[in-house]
Amino acid sequence: MLTAQAVVFSEHGEPADVLRTHTYEIDENNLDANSIIVKTVGSPVNPSDINQIQGVYPSQPERTTALGTDQPLAVCGNEGLFEILHVGSEVKNFQVGDWAVPTSVNFGTWRTHALCSEDKMMKLPNPKQSKANGKPQGLTVNQGATISVNPLTAFLMLNHYVKLEPGKDWFIQNGGNSAVGKFATQIGRILGINSISVIRDRPNLQETIEDLKTNQGATHVITEEQNNSREFTDVKKWVKETGGSIKLAMNCVGGKSSTAVARKLSPDGLMLTYGGMSYQPVILPTSLHIFKNITSAGFWVTELLKSNPQLKRDTMNQIVLWYEEGKLSDAKSVELKFDGGDLAKLYQEAVANSKNGKQLVVY
Amino acid sequence: MLTAQAVVFSEHGEPADVLRTHTYEIDENNLDANSIIVKTVGSPVNPSDINQIQGVYPSQPERTTALGTDQPLAVCGNEGLFEILHVGSEVKNFQVGDWAVPTSVNFGTWRTHALCSEDKMMKLPNPKQSKANGKPQGLTVNQGATISVNPLTAFLMLNHYVKLEPGKDWFIQNGGNSAVGKFATQIGRILGINSISVIRDRPNLQETIEDLKTNQGATHVITEEQNNSREFTDVKKWVKETGGSIKLAMNCVGGKSSTAVARKLSPDGLMLTYGGMSYQPVILPTSLHIFKNITSAGFWVTELLKSNPQLKRDTMNQIVLWYEEGKLSDAKSVELKFDGGDLAKLYQEAVANSKNGKQLVVY
Repeated sequence: MLTAQAVVFSEHGEPADVLRTHTYEIDENNLDANSIIVKTVGSPVNPSDINQIQGVYPSQPERTTALGTDQPLAVCGNEGLFEILHVGSEVKNFQVGDWAVPTSVNFGTWRTHALCSEDKMMKLPNPKQSKANGKPQGLTVNQGATISVNPLTAFLMLNHYVKLEPGKDWFIQNGGNSAVGKFATQIGRILGINSISVIRDRPNLQETIEDLKTNQGATHVITEEQNNSREFTDVKKWVKETGGSIKLAMNCVGGKSSTAVARKLSPDGLMLTYGGMSYQPVILPTSLHIFKNITSAGFWVTELLKSNPQLKRDTMNQIVLWYEEGKLSDAKSVELKFDGGDLAKLYQEAVANSKNGKQLVVY
Repeated sequence: MLTAQAVVFSEHGEPADVLRTHTYEIDENNLDANSIIVKTVGSPVNPSDINQIQGVYPSQPERTTALGTDQPLAVCGNEGLFEILHVGSEVKNFQVGDWAVPTSVNFGTWRTHALCSEDKMMKLPNPKQSKANGKPQGLTVNQGATISVNPLTAFLMLNHYVKLEPGKDWFIQNGGNSAVGKFATQIGRILGINSISVIRDRPNLQETIEDLKTNQGATHVITEEQNNSREFTDVKKWVKETGGSIKLAMNCVGGKSSTAVARKLSPDGLMLTYGGMSYQPVILPTSLHIFKNITSAGFWVTELLKSNPQLKRDTMNQIVLWYEEGKLSDAKSVELKFDGGDLAKLYQEAVANSKNGKQLVVY
């Protein structure tokens, strides 16, 4: 028998109030033929995980008594990296020691172990396998544990909607220093797509601009003040020089920032909204819709991939390859090490620290 | 020689200031083989005609010296009904007495006569031809002169983007008592598509609701107050009863009215913006984009049909047929009769009266 811990809630509320640790047993000696037992290598705290617990997120984990409780419980967490510990007699896709991530959201990744059917997991190469395959490097725990949301969001927004011509075309994004923003910039560099990242003014502005240009590969970085200024006309000049168009805008801010990036789109351009950090709605002048044929749509990686696991598989393979080749850098996390104590307390600490950067619990 | 008058401008400004009458001659005895001479039957004053003269509209007529002037002039007007007076020796599509409308915008329809190649005009049946073809009725002058903008806008928004299932699906629109709004409602009735029209409160509210429901065929009419109220939940109930979805919203108002109609869309719904009567931008909560996958796009009949004359031809044929069968009512105009005086003065009077209803100059 394996003793497992999971961070669970039965009623919505603030994580500090409603999370608790549920301890239960997993019998590794009576494994169903198609089942696997995994142990968690690492799992992060994402804003959507917190919103799920608070009850303000439309996608929710099922509450179940499957962990041996009278009361239905939901296990927290959507992203995580797992290692295969045991495989049932008819499992085809996994061997002990393989790495994997959940096929879908709402798996419940804030736990030490999980028992599931093999189709609930997608394989990732572990570092030994990457090396055996002749790759320059393997995935880090952080890369594996945070591959499912941010890199996929950036890749799919850039590739799934609009055809951008390398060397000519452009995308523009606000939130350029966010995790998704940096992935989009890096993927733009790899694919040869020009980028304009809008960032807020900040004490270390020049340093941030330098990082985005030199390390992430942003073609240009502008401030929100420049973004909002009618006098700032450099963008037109830059786009003219490549002979291309700004066909895509990515918006995670809303409000006047969304208006200003939409204004910079070329005719027939598309703005994808994937976040609303300003808590302001998307605001679009009527003339942009009618006379420039600008379209404004939403992007939610969860919904897009729910019905399309093959798209998730293909996109993840591409991201893995770029990590292995050292072409893509991950967004750094703050690591909290699980020491065998109370798991819920550890994630509550991680939630409380979330404002200081992405928190990753490693096991 | 024919003596023609045209209403022209050389510089943008208020119509009362910049319009003048240009008188010129057309030689009907030396007609090019592919040319036709038409006389105007009627042409309306549309808001976009006024905006063109003011210089605040992105589509503009060419300024030309083709009417025999030293200074380049633009002829006003985009919509109009014409009768064929003379045909060149190789003209194939027209006979004297036929009715026609311009193939494209910016033809310059505020004039008594025009000389053009036959491809600049599309044929409409005149009343004698409709009768000869066994139709219950022919087009009126108002129907022919105003067919190109409002009925086409309504038809194409309803049919060109989203597949609405008759008897089940719905569209919602603000500006429900506008000309386009009424055409959309009527076309919805003909096609069996359920409609919800949002209208502003007004002194004769009940009468207007009754007209929209009984005469135009609106399934439901609600006020902007109801549209904006979270407590008003009838829409959900109505849609549930048919087992369909609100797949399409049509917005000509903007501001909070656009937010409220977008909120009523079913998941994956589309909002088309074709006007902005409130002078407020389109405002879309981030969550509607991300979690309901609502898309917001623009509609401009001019741009859509510019590259697709066949779509214009097909759509116009359908509208003509419904007029001939008495299934569709036109939006009434206020008629001003040209008495041979100063044409520019007559259109300036029409522009000044535009707030009291659509003005149609008949010849």
